[in-house]
Amino acid sequence: MKLSTYFRSSAAWRVRIALGLKGVAWTPDFIHLLRGGGEQLRPEYRTRNPTGLVPTLETDDGAAIAQSLAIIEWLEETHPTPPLLPGDPLARARVRAFALTIACDIHPLNNLRVLRYLGREMGQDQALRDRWYAHWIAEGLAALEAMLADQSGPFCFGDAPGLADVCLIPQLGNARRMRCPVEPYPKLLRAEAAACVLPAFADAAPDRQPDAG
Amino acid sequence: MKLSTYFRSSAAWRVRIALGLKGVAWTPDFIHLLRGGGEQLRPEYRTRNPTGLVPTLETDDGAAIAQSLAIIEWLEETHPTPPLLPGDPLARARVRAFALTIACDIHPLNNLRVLRYLGREMGQDQALRDRWYAHWIAEGLAALEAMLADQSGPFCFGDAPGLADVCLIPQLGNARRMRCPVEPYPKLLRAEAAACVLPAFADAAPDRQPDAG
Repeated sequence: MKLSTYFRSSAAWRVRIALGLKGVAWTPDFIHLLRGGGEQLRPEYRTRNPTGLVPTLETDDGAAIAQSLAIIEWLEETHPTPPLLPGDPLARARVRAFALTIACDIHPLNNLRVLRYLGREMGQDQALRDRWYAHWIAEGLAALEAMLADQSGPFCFGDAPGLADVCLIPQLGNARRMRCPVEPYPKLLRAEAAACVLPAFADAAPDRQPDAG
Repeated sequence: MKLSTYFRSSAAWRVRIALGLKGVAWTPDFIHLLRGGGEQLRPEYRTRNPTGLVPTLETDDGAAIAQSLAIIEWLEETHPTPPLLPGDPLARARVRAFALTIACDIHPLNNLRVLRYLGREMGQDQALRDRWYAHWIAEGLAALEAMLADQSGPFCFGDAPGLADVCLIPQLGNARRMRCPVEPYPKLLRAEAAACVLPAFADAAPDRQPDAG
């Protein structure tokens, strides 16, 4: 399989973790989001992924899949072991709701293209963009912490890493990089501590990618 | 089942359609997003849904599920007929990628709380906020249209309505309400035409809700 990835993209980071947890070998296709106005916006890339966003997974049959959560659900269905979702439908719904809170309510607001629009089209300076960034991080992480109120860990939901952890660790990574407070969220930090020692998480980190720099 | 809903919320609208397609009876719990500073932000509601966003589905067992796509995946698993996703994993991935492009890349950027932040915290007037709204609609709908390039309809993916249509129709509804151009997207309009005559879609429309006004 081939993954179109950028070291700092937290959506690509999610897929790198999931591929690692599933033990699936993959070849990187580096898409530099800044160079030349953004390689993800080139027609060649858009043919494979019309959203002009990373990641894209190309399967061994040459099919291209967009959207990190669609890729991970596909991986879950085609490579069921180890599972990233529990078996019970209600438990699955809770894990998916946690993942979607990151994928819908935090990450898209703090995406590169949005921060650019705020700067270039709306004249918001770096300090105001940083405040915007921190605002959605704080709103989102507080909701995530509350979603784990009845969970005893060590991971987000139980004693094995799953979709919730796959999405959380990159989002916490972004929060730390932007110096947003993470101390108010002990359950999230507990899951992060449990995850970060696992090779699948460690190997997927931005600073471990060949295109980092 | 009980659905916390607001007539104009396109995320709640998705779930109303899905419940209708599945033939599941539900009781509305009206959450007015504007009244009293927003009923979705009240502690009582946040206990059920920490995100402070609609919708929330309360199952017959009293469990609360947040996030429209998590709710719909749960419905799909617990009420499999009629299916909203195809059977083949790659086909499922394409439908999910389409749905996530709406749920992650369009809708969250044009959400009430975000438009409020742009106005109150960033001083962007109505015209600038409208331009922002139209920008993300245009970016997103163009990607969605391209995702259907090889599809012959009448629905987004094939001859029965599914998750893609469930997400598309509310998003097109928002685009029309905000007077964003929809003519450049003939495949999306074809799916809309096929869907809107079905009772599940018609009954879920905002102007058919008891809380509309």
